[in-house]
Amino acid sequence: MVRIIVLRLGHRYVRDYRVTTHLALVARVFGAEKMIVTKIEEDVKKSIEEVENNWGGKFDIEEVENWRDVIKEWKDKNNLIIHLTMYGININSIIDKIRNEGKDIMIIVGAEKVPREVFELSDYNIAIGNQPHSEIAALAIFLDRLFEGKELEKNFNGRLRIIPHERGKIVKRSDSIDNSY
Amino acid sequence: MVRIIVLRLGHRYVRDYRVTTHLALVARVFGAEKMIVTKIEEDVKKSIEEVENNWGGKFDIEEVENWRDVIKEWKDKNNLIIHLTMYGININSIIDKIRNEGKDIMIIVGAEKVPREVFELSDYNIAIGNQPHSEIAALAIFLDRLFEGKELEKNFNGRLRIIPHERGKIVKRSDSIDNSY
Repeated sequence: MVRIIVLRLGHRYVRDYRVTTHLALVARVFGAEKMIVTKIEEDVKKSIEEVENNWGGKFDIEEVENWRDVIKEWKDKNNLIIHLTMYGININSIIDKIRNEGKDIMIIVGAEKVPREVFELSDYNIAIGNQPHSEIAALAIFLDRLFEGKELEKNFNGRLRIIPHERGKIVKRSDSIDNSY
Repeated sequence: MVRIIVLRLGHRYVRDYRVTTHLALVARVFGAEKMIVTKIEEDVKKSIEEVENNWGGKFDIEEVENWRDVIKEWKDKNNLIIHLTMYGININSIIDKIRNEGKDIMIIVGAEKVPREVFELSDYNIAIGNQPHSEIAALAIFLDRLFEGKELEKNFNGRLRIIPHERGKIVKRSDSIDNSY
């Protein structure tokens, strides 16, 4: 499986708090190993750590000073850079090509305005439909299409685990501590 | 194409403002005709109207007093009710069956806690992976899978329209007023 890193640009304090949290949770579940941000609230990081502690997997949030350096470094390794934007090429016409390249991918997900140079630096500017909606949905759809749904069957080996059920809420705990008495 | 209505439950004032806005935008783009809510900020409705005025399509937000009546009415018509929840059956194992039923669907999307009875009233409780992430992502994935990506090629006949481009931001205006002088 190719490695996926998400680069979140333009996070605005307070205003984007919950959107960036959703974005990190989506990145984690849909197969990314890390989300790089410039600066976010401590609470976003804490929420994600809490999810990781309970539900397993390995997912990092990394704060960097300069996102341009991150992009440059990634480009130097000959990996792919994909920018999700409503102005780009429709995902329907390009996803198979990207999957076939088999390269590690950095996915750039902006908040409102994204600097012009991001469009230039990216190998692909991809639209999840050419209409305004949500960067959270865009990231999820991109990864779901890339991995063809297989990411939703991954075992996270968490302390908590849901047993899928038609009507119930069944959560299994697998603490090393015996909770049965 | 089957009719899709989204029922948003448990919206919390201020806290859920942006999440519910993203949810409505996703519902609109991914093929729903309406989102039913109990009570939301005027600003959420205004944002969606603005998007509709600029980018086209027909999408309504309907406020109702009692969501139980809405569910009951929908059930009486022999339509499907699907509740998106991390506790449900993995979408991978059920989406083909749902598509094949060919019925109109009400999709229930909760905020944090969803009353027990919603699990009982729904025909299917479906998980977009059995891990916590985002109701915005969940709705997008469900509809993308249901419509097999075709929803992203719909023409919204908006006043503004993006011409997909590899690097640029190309927006076409189609006002009836001539803006050329």
